Amino acid sequence: MSLLRAHLGTTLRSARVAQGRTLRDVAKSARVSLGYLSEVERGQKEASSELINAICSALDLNLSTLLTEVVAQVKSHETPALTVVDDAA
Amino acid sequence: MSLLRAHLGTTLRSARVAQGRTLRDVAKSARVSLGYLSEVERGQKEASSELINAICSALDLNLSTLLTEVVAQVKSHETPALTVVDDAA
Repeated sequence: MSLLRAHLGTTLRSARVAQGRTLRDVAKSARVSLGYLSEVERGQKEASSELINAICSALDLNLSTLLTEVVAQVKSHETPALTVVDDAA
Repeated sequence: MSLLRAHLGTTLRSARVAQGRTLRDVAKSARVSLGYLSEVERGQKEASSELINAICSALDLNLSTLLTEVVAQVKSHETPALTVVDDAA
């Protein structure tokens, strides 16, 4: 099973990049260090729920909007059901 | 903004209760202490991504299924948009 923090990080980074914002800018708004935010984005640190909220606020994102995006990411990494291939075709 | 760990905990507890399973049973399957699982369910501890996966496996849940339920929970706690009430009616 893939790791939640990896998907959370990828999603946060995508949201930031889509807004054309720098790590420095978002870290400042969220009142976290640039290094810490960078580690969260790379899935190397577990962010506390409070920190996730602070980053969401800095990005002007609802928690539910962020998590909906995370669900899509997680689904795309889950093992798909086996498909029957018709060799006779 | 409400806290992810609170919604995660509520959702994990609901899934366990829906399966008619005890904290002891799920803690054993997930190889965590009963006290720790209980704190996670009550939203008092942040569970690591690895631990969330272990609890999901113990409950035979996909991470995406769990998170979809969490999104529904989070949404139900977010401030709804203001609605215009027609006083003249």
